Formats: sequence, C-alpha cells, structure tokens
Amino acid sequence: MNPPASRRTAVIDLGSNSARVVVMNFRPGYSYHLEDEVREIVRLREGMTEAGLSDAAMTRGLFTLRLFRRFCDSVGVDRIIATATSAVREAANGPRFLERVAWDVGLSVRVLDGTQEAFYGVLGALNAVPLEDGIVLDIGGGSAQVSRVRARRFERGQALTLGSLALTERFVRSDPVRKSELQAVQQEIERQLDGVPWLNGERGPLVGLGGTIRNLAKIEAARRRYPLQTINGFALSRASVDETVRILSQSPLSLRRRLPGLARDRADIILPGALVLRGVMERLGVKELAISESGLREGLFFEEFWSDLPYPVTPGLREFAVLNLARFYGYHEAHAEHVRHLATRLFDQLAPLHGYGAWERELLRAAALLHDIGMAIRYNDHHKYSQTLITGSGLPGHSGREISLIALLARYHRKGVPDAGEYAGLLEQGDETRLVRLSALLRLSEFLERGRAGVVRDVEARWDTQGLRLTLVADEHPTVELWDAQRNALDLMESAMGRPVVLDSRLAV
Amino acid sequence: MNPPASRRTAVIDLGSNSARVVVMNFRPGYSYHLEDEVREIVRLREGMTEAGLSDAAMTRGLFTLRLFRRFCDSVGVDRIIATATSAVREAANGPRFLERVAWDVGLSVRVLDGTQEAFYGVLGALNAVPLEDGIVLDIGGGSAQVSRVRARRFERGQALTLGSLALTERFVRSDPVRKSELQAVQQEIERQLDGVPWLNGERGPLVGLGGTIRNLAKIEAARRRYPLQTINGFALSRASVDETVRILSQSPLSLRRRLPGLARDRADIILPGALVLRGVMERLGVKELAISESGLREGLFFEEFWSDLPYPVTPGLREFAVLNLARFYGYHEAHAEHVRHLATRLFDQLAPLHGYGAWERELLRAAALLHDIGMAIRYNDHHKYSQTLITGSGLPGHSGREISLIALLARYHRKGVPDAGEYAGLLEQGDETRLVRLSALLRLSEFLERGRAGVVRDVEARWDTQGLRLTLVADEHPTVELWDAQRNALDLMESAMGRPVVLDSRLAV
Repeated sequence: MNPPASRRTAVIDLGSNSARVVVMNFRPGYSYHLEDEVREIVRLREGMTEAGLSDAAMTRGLFTLRLFRRFCDSVGVDRIIATATSAVREAANGPRFLERVAWDVGLSVRVLDGTQEAFYGVLGALNAVPLEDGIVLDIGGGSAQVSRVRARRFERGQALTLGSLALTERFVRSDPVRKSELQAVQQEIERQLDGVPWLNGERGPLVGLGGTIRNLAKIEAARRRYPLQTINGFALSRASVDETVRILSQSPLSLRRRLPGLARDRADIILPGALVLRGVMERLGVKELAISESGLREGLFFEEFWSDLPYPVTPGLREFAVLNLARFYGYHEAHAEHVRHLATRLFDQLAPLHGYGAWERELLRAAALLHDIGMAIRYNDHHKYSQTLITGSGLPGHSGREISLIALLARYHRKGVPDAGEYAGLLEQGDETRLVRLSALLRLSEFLERGRAGVVRDVEARWDTQGLRLTLVADEHPTVELWDAQRNALDLMESAMGRPVVLDSRLAV
Repeated sequence: MNPPASRRTAVIDLGSNSARVVVMNFRPGYSYHLEDEVREIVRLREGMTEAGLSDAAMTRGLFTLRLFRRFCDSVGVDRIIATATSAVREAANGPRFLERVAWDVGLSVRVLDGTQEAFYGVLGALNAVPLEDGIVLDIGGGSAQVSRVRARRFERGQALTLGSLALTERFVRSDPVRKSELQAVQQEIERQLDGVPWLNGERGPLVGLGGTIRNLAKIEAARRRYPLQTINGFALSRASVDETVRILSQSPLSLRRRLPGLARDRADIILPGALVLRGVMERLGVKELAISESGLREGLFFEEFWSDLPYPVTPGLREFAVLNLARFYGYHEAHAEHVRHLATRLFDQLAPLHGYGAWERELLRAAALLHDIGMAIRYNDHHKYSQTLITGSGLPGHSGREISLIALLARYHRKGVPDAGEYAGLLEQGDETRLVRLSALLRLSEFLERGRAGVVRDVEARWDTQGLRLTLVADEHPTVELWDAQRNALDLMESAMGRPVVLDSRLAV
C-alpha cells in the first residue's frame, strides 16, 4: 500500500502578542512534520482601548499577515487555515479589521471564541503528551484557556482574560515590578479562577502549553542543563515555577532579559503569566505539570491530519510517534522491521535472563525501527546521527528518559561500549544496565540482518548456567552473518548476559 | 529544468585486505551521495602461495560477495560495478576463482590491472581535493599505486607490491616488530620505488588515499582533537607520520589496538604502509600531503556519474561540492539564491569597509546557499543543524578551515553572537572578525528575504564616517522586512561595520 500523497497546510495564528505561520508537510493519517515557520511579534493588544485595536497595531497586523500570505504563496501550500484569538475577538473594531485583511491580503481569518480556542489547544496537547483525564492550561498573550479532559477528549473549557500581555498592560507599570502590582495581578487571577466552578475538586494531572509555559520550562531546562533539544513531555515542578517567579519579581527588565532560557521578547511580560500558572497549580494541588510543545496551531492542523478518524487524536500516541519519525527520515522499512522482529524474538526468549518487561520491550522495538534513520544525514557515522535525530525530535508521548534511552540504543547499534554520556542526568537507577542489555540484543539483530534480505528468519535460544546457545534459522547457510555477529556483537552479548554465547545455525524447513 | 532522475549504482571492490560495497544514490551530473555501505575484512591475500589464493580465503571471498549481491538486490540498485585488485590479479588461480563467483553468485567481476587501479584512484581523488599537477599515492592491502597528475588529469601510474598486508605477510613475524624486520621492509620499499624512474624530480604536491593513509590521518586527527567528522582535505604532516611510525614500531599489537584513531582491524598491518608513505614523502621532499576520502570505488562511480563530460572530473570542484550538498538536503532554491544575491550585493558594495576579497566572497556565497539545509532535519534549531550537516559532509575541495567558516556562517544566520566554539582550533588569525563581518551580511540578507518571495530586490549602500545607509529596493513597501532587519540584524551589522546603520527603502521602478 502506498502512503497517501504529501500535502502542505499552513496554519496562521494571529495572537495578542505574537503572530505565527507554520507550514506542516504531511501525508494524511500517515506522517507529518513542521516544515517551516515565521514568527513575528505583533503586540496586537498594545494600546487597545474601548474603541478597539489601535491604528499602529492594525498596521502591524496587516503587514504581518501580508508577509505570511506571500510566504505561503512562495512556499507553495495547498491550504491556509488562518485564525485570530482574544485581541481581535475582544476588540470593538475586530470585524472591521478582518474585513480589511480579507480585502487587502486576501486572507479569510476565522475568529475563535474562547471555547474553540481551548478546544484546539487541547487537541494539540492530546497529540503530544499522554493524558487520559486531567486539566490543560494554555497561557497566551491575551487570554488563558483552562480545559478539562476526560477519556482523552476535550470535555469543557473556557478562556479567561489572563494572558501575559493583557495582565502586564493592565497592572504593571514599574521596573522591577512592585509588590503592590503583583498583588493586584494575584487578586485578578484568583477572582477569575473563582469564576471557573468546575475546576474545584480537580486534582490534575496538569498539562501546560503556550509560549509562557514553554518559556518557563525552558528556563528550568537551562538551569539544570537539560540535554534534549525538545521540551515536549518535560516535567516542570512547582518548586521550579516558584523559583522562577522569585527571580523574575526581584530583577529589573535589563537582568530578566539575560535570564538563560527566557526569550528576550517575552522578558517584559512573562511574570504575570508565571503567576497564572502558579495559581492554577495551587488550586489543583499538583506538584508538577507536563509540557506540550503542541498547542492551538497544531490542534487546528490535527483536525485536518486525522480527518478520517471520528475524533482527531492520534490512536496509539507513542507507536505513532516512532513511526512518524521513521517515515519522515525515509527509513528502510523491510530492514528495520526485520531487525525489530529478531530483536523482539531475542527479548522474549531471553526474558528469564534479563528480567525486563513490557516497557523495555517497547523501547527496544522503537530503537529497532529507528536505528538507521541517521542515514538520512550521512552514511558515515549514521549511528551517531540517529541519536541526534531522535533526541532532537521529541517523540510525542515519551518522557525525556525514554527518548534518551531509545536514542542511546540507536547510537550503539553498530559499535562502541554503550555509555549514557550527556544523557546520564535523565536516566534512573538501573538504566545503564538496561542500556547494555538492550543494546546487545539490538546489535546482534542488526548483524544478523547484515545483508538486508531477511536471510536469518529467526533465532532460537537455549541456555544453562554454562552458556547461551543461539541458533540462527536461515534460508541458506548464513556464513557471513555468523562471522559478523561473532566479530561485532558477541562481546557485548556475553557481557550483557553474563555467560559465554555460542552461535550456530540450521536451515529453515 | 527538472533534475535528471535518481539512480542507484553499487560499486563492489574486492581488495586484498577488505571488501566493500558502496551504494551511490545519484542524479547523473547533478548530485550524488553515498547511501549505504558494507565493509568486510576478507584478508584474501592471507595464506596465498605460488598456487594462488588459499581455499579458506576463496571461501571468505565467495560468501562475502554473495552477501553483497543479496544486499544490492535488497536495496534495489540499478547497476553493479564489481572489481577485484591485486590479490586476484596476482593469484595463479584468480581466473578460476572469478569463474566460480560468476557461477555461484551471478556477479561478473572485472580485474583491474595496476594502471587501471591507479587511474580510478586518481579519478576519485581529483573529484575530492584540488590538485592541478602532482602525485597521488594510494596504499591498499595488496598493492600501492603511485600516479602522476598533469592539468587535473591522470597522466601515468603504476601499482607496486607495497600494500600494507602484503608487506606485513612477507616481512613481519615479531610483536613488537623488530628493527631488522623494519629494515627489510624499508629496503624493499626503496628497491621498488627505485623502479619508478619518473618519480625522480617530482616535488609534489602529494595527495594520499586508501585505508592505510586515511587511518594515519585519523590517528593525527585524534591526537589533535580535530573537530570535523570528515578528514577529506586534511593536511597530514611529515612530522606527524614520523611520530606515528615511532609509536607503532615501539608498541606491541595489544597497545597498537588501543591507539586512538586506528581501526582495530588494521592495527596489525598498518606499520609497513606508514613506511611506504614516509618513503614517498622523502623522495618527493614534501612536508605534508592532502587526504582524499575518495579513491578507487568513487573513481569507478564518477566515471558513470560524469559520463556526459569528456573527462570524468568535476568541473568547478568547490562550487559543485556546495551545490551537491544543497541539493541532497533539498534546499529551497529560489530563497537560497535570493539570499545569496543580496549577500553578494552587500559584500561587493561594502568592500571598502570590510576589505575582503574573492576568497571571503566565495565563503559567504557558499554559506548563503547552504544556510537553511538544516531544515531537512528539523525546523526548530535548523541553523544548528545546518552547521552539523556542513561540518559532517566534508565539502570536497575545501580545507577544514573553510568548512568550519562556512558552517559557522550558516550557524549564525538567524541569531546569536558569532563564536568559533569548538572550531576555533581550525581558524587562523583574523577569522573571528571575518566570521562576524560575513555573518552580519548573511543575517541581514536573510531577514530581507523573510517572506521568501524576493520582495526586496536589491540593496544600495552609502556611507560616510558617521554612518551607513542601506536602501532596500522593493516591489512594494517592505514594512515587515524593515522591522525584522531592524530588530534582528542591525546590532550585528553595526558592530561588524563599526558605525551606525540606517535602513530605508524605495520602490523599484
């Protein structure tokens, strides 16, 4: 079966603080990736009055959308989904502004109401992090959306005027921020959260998204030298949010701008947003939240991507994340699946020796599928590039620890002594041993599939205290596979299994 | 014009020490890359007698070729070019062995004579490093080829029985190697080089290729912590070869195996090869040689790749290397070329301010073409991935210093303060300033081409001691480009040009 044809959809999101266009390249229901992006600070809400958006803000908005439009035309997208949120929604002159956009730029912009904005943010999150039942919080520039999820579906949600920019514009005049101003922000947060009765009694888990929360996570990631390039799935603790609030409230803007991890163009507005997050964590009584790098824009995209499903949320989030990555980097499907088959066979038969279960099995199978993706970069050292691509990608649904383990397994699929290196900080006790044992199984499977033609169909394992015998079941005598496995994979296998390993073969019948 | 359709050619090379199959994926005359590879140690020459190849060696050869054949079938190649060199060439039973290969494996293997072997090695080298006139030395397992190049063409060459494995088998019995054994090797080298009269009077430059020389370069690269992943273009000094010879002759095999950079399966045979290299350097009186990562296999491939040319050597080696990389990673041609156009316009007009010439211009133009290739990996942080891809690739025809500069320019095309980082050791005096000035031009050009639609057609520069005025010539008012350039590129531009910079615009007429 051939995969569906590839398409490009652009999602434009005109927010109160920033405007963005993302170009998603995808094959419906099969694979997707973010291909291109432009982000502009528009500060649409700046100078907003009873009469609505200011002239300067509208000009910035208009020119930015014109640039986005040109960008989409030049990149060649099949469809543009353009939306606007709180600033345009709340401005008295919002409709007139959008008429001008339609007229001047030729873009039809859909204004999302609060519930819709909450819904699409949740769709983004559900396609990025595991969440069955819980709360999703999305803090934007103008508004903040809080939603409840039940059985992996959006149940209800609403927008509050608790965006970082909106709160800053309304309450903050001083630098550094005064205690009295912070108290006013705090009171407003409490007042508005009191207006969400269904939040009472909720206990999490909490998932956070949007620029403010992502940035708070990046500050913590910089603080502890988090080694991954992605913060999707990152666990941000209450203690770390408190610490960041403390630093931000004591520093003048000039110092805040230099806080590692904080985007310079958010330094002036992030503090009220951080207080919103703290307020919600306090109400739920949660000690941490999980970060979703997907939000509103991705939610709008997933509605199209999963349009064949009754509900547009990835079925099997983790499995799909692995497949999606493999597909994007053009994996050699037959080879990868055969290596996965052999590795699984070894894992299952040797369970009494390694003692691992379903979790490790899933990691091994993911690594088997992804072990060669680095070849998309360069054949030489492709095992190292496989690691780079996996740690850079984020694998939706996986924790930092899981991403690191899968990446390290891919890294050591050909040679070298498995070593956690810079990812050691993400691992837990026993993971170094896990890494060695699973690497041994993957490497042996790789060398048994050296010819890429599936000649070694199966492996049968027998052992006693003296040693382990592995019999290759093959279509023809697997001479080279035996030599290669012998020379390249047996040392690791012996040290992983703690006993001598002997290879032999028999013909498949 | 659409690029030619993509094809796959496999080149199999059955050497005396190792056998390899490489799969090249290419569009004839347009782009190519190494897609896949299997290397096996066959030691075909081991145990060779008057009667020819030993039974064990033939069995290893046969099974390895069968694996390669299966591999090619499974990967799906359009053509297989299979060759054998000295071991088969010199073995009395070579023809009979190849008949069996044809019969059992269905591969027709071409035996290269000494001149052909030299010729294809030179073709590989000429497509990888700049060499007008000089000497090429290729040290293999069985034989070593020395060739003379005139006007970028192979002029003459011959094979000598000076391969690493051949010399080891003939003269070395002890571990560590005895002085007397080394002297015997040395005498044999001198005797055979005396038989190459046309080498007299040659003064280099010298280019080296083949596993032995590559490995000597890798040892030196490890010693000085060379930060690139490729050693193509690496300058290996006579002093470093002498140092490696000293270490290798004093260490037993167990220590040699642990020498950083040395492949474990070469540790037992590399020393005689190192002496051959030293002998040739001595005769030519050269203080260094340039490493080519391309050799025989690539030469055989280039004959096909450049079959439309009268002589199969890349015209414009450096320009083609840049284009080839851009094409492999699917660059956005219109955008990259427009950024290159604007950067070149700025460079040329501002020459009196920066004082740079043709060399820097070429680096800037290369970086402009390659700045976004990291998007093939991931949009986020793509500037960092562009650097990774450039430093990982090797850019034929470029030195390590040039590769580093181009990669760093790409790295800083969007943001950050240009910094040589781990590549500092490859740079020379003044390069940090070069990096800042050229980065400034590239970054400004990038932000002027933000919309990817070529709206800013041109830039005009005027300046006095007070400041620099840049006028954008555009099809419509470039509002966003002005903001973006202002906010993202002007600081760097001002510090690079040492004066205030003002941007304005006028409509193109």
